[in-house]
Amino acid sequence: MATLIDGKALAKKVNAQTAERVAKLKAEHNIVPGLVVVIVGDDQASQRYVRNKHRTAQKLGINSSIKQLPNSVSQDELLELINEYNADSSINGILVQDPLPDQIDEKLVTRTILPEKDVDGFHPENVGKLFLADTTDYPVSCTPKGIMTMFTEYGIDLMGKDAVMIGRSSIVGKPMASLMLNEGASVTVVHRHTKDVKFYTKNADVIVSATGQLHTLTASDIKEGAVVIDVGQNMNEEGHLVGDVDFDEVEKKASYITPVPGGVGPMTIATLMQQTVDLTEWSLMSE
Amino acid sequence: MATLIDGKALAKKVNAQTAERVAKLKAEHNIVPGLVVVIVGDDQASQRYVRNKHRTAQKLGINSSIKQLPNSVSQDELLELINEYNADSSINGILVQDPLPDQIDEKLVTRTILPEKDVDGFHPENVGKLFLADTTDYPVSCTPKGIMTMFTEYGIDLMGKDAVMIGRSSIVGKPMASLMLNEGASVTVVHRHTKDVKFYTKNADVIVSATGQLHTLTASDIKEGAVVIDVGQNMNEEGHLVGDVDFDEVEKKASYITPVPGGVGPMTIATLMQQTVDLTEWSLMSE
Repeated sequence: MATLIDGKALAKKVNAQTAERVAKLKAEHNIVPGLVVVIVGDDQASQRYVRNKHRTAQKLGINSSIKQLPNSVSQDELLELINEYNADSSINGILVQDPLPDQIDEKLVTRTILPEKDVDGFHPENVGKLFLADTTDYPVSCTPKGIMTMFTEYGIDLMGKDAVMIGRSSIVGKPMASLMLNEGASVTVVHRHTKDVKFYTKNADVIVSATGQLHTLTASDIKEGAVVIDVGQNMNEEGHLVGDVDFDEVEKKASYITPVPGGVGPMTIATLMQQTVDLTEWSLMSE
Repeated sequence: MATLIDGKALAKKVNAQTAERVAKLKAEHNIVPGLVVVIVGDDQASQRYVRNKHRTAQKLGINSSIKQLPNSVSQDELLELINEYNADSSINGILVQDPLPDQIDEKLVTRTILPEKDVDGFHPENVGKLFLADTTDYPVSCTPKGIMTMFTEYGIDLMGKDAVMIGRSSIVGKPMASLMLNEGASVTVVHRHTKDVKFYTKNADVIVSATGQLHTLTASDIKEGAVVIDVGQNMNEEGHLVGDVDFDEVEKKASYITPVPGGVGPMTIATLMQQTVDLTEWSLMSE
């Protein structure tokens, strides 16, 4: 029976540390970390995510604000707003919630946010530093970074391990693969074009699934004692939130497993908050 | 018996195209692509590489210059020089030959070169764009880019293929893995900490070796019909230049193989020249 990686409990712990760091910044530097979340349009899921992030940030003492823009906003208006935030010393982290309407070039938005205020860790310069295993300070995509915090908390060492990343998105798959490679794992990235995913997963010590597909991984796909991380957020036939992994089956064979909900999800938001404070502390050091 | 991938012949072909593009830039825009190669100290191998690049550039009509600096040069002096080149519109590509003496932070040098003059493709912003499969124009590390040119020339399609990158350097292994992943391959990066390299290489359709170790790959390590790319440049017992791969054995089993010398090596320099002209053409488009 696998050990459950309790993302909810770990997120609580990380948030407590973040709140302490916020208090310390206030006491020692009279600075309150500032996070602004820009949301365009009224996509209900996005609205929910944003409110969620906002509430958590406020709870931790971060000066959080939501900037709601109409679906009709022009690219120039959005970029101009971002440049105002770039120039505003009270703002340490800028997050633009996707999806964005068609008239807006998402990549251009990502690049307009200053790398040192890129709380999502999506700017090519930050991604490049991660890929190059740069040892200086820079933000990293929150979901993979949160998973690395789980590995550390549960004493899961990646050195020399065979790791498989299922999915190659820019937000999860690619940065996760980099983080594991940088920790000394042998990393395979598999995806929809992969001939035989099982060839890799059956040999893997660590598997991270981010496909958004039900039943991506079942017990026969993994080896005894594998560590299984489930990034999936899917609705099952009964309308319940479930992951990519057949939890009940895989749990019997894995050594560690993350539940959905209560696994990777809470860690992503906790990491976003943590990283907002990181950016604030780094900005002080660079002064 | 494998088809030999003739890097020398392909480099000739690429160089001819580069020379044509140089002539066209001169005729239509009265512009001559400018490449400056900075070398610090008198390491013999580096001196040889640099002269090699310089001679090839001149042959193709590129305005190439070598800037020789003493081993005692300070970091500030070097960075100041790079900033002068950054500001000099007659220079399209800046290359700082490594190794650099201890008093110089190589990473800082890489970041000081403007991304749009980063002919080596080492700047984190350019690396990040590669990793993110960005579709805009940016330079890419020359050895992996040259290998991709070989794949194209020989009709080797990577979509859905199982690819293994042996070695995880920032200059070859990591960018090569990204390029193959971006073309739809399932990519595994293996390295000195990998438990069982053969598990991956025996299953691989495409193997790229960049270990700098003799006998990294022999016939029993690969499957029938694999494509084998040898980035190694090693001296064997008899003092001859050889690759990582046991060529005579592997050649019998592979479908395609690169020789050493005459494989990847010539393509790296040809790609550097090609990329100098790319940077020049891109600078015109952005005007």
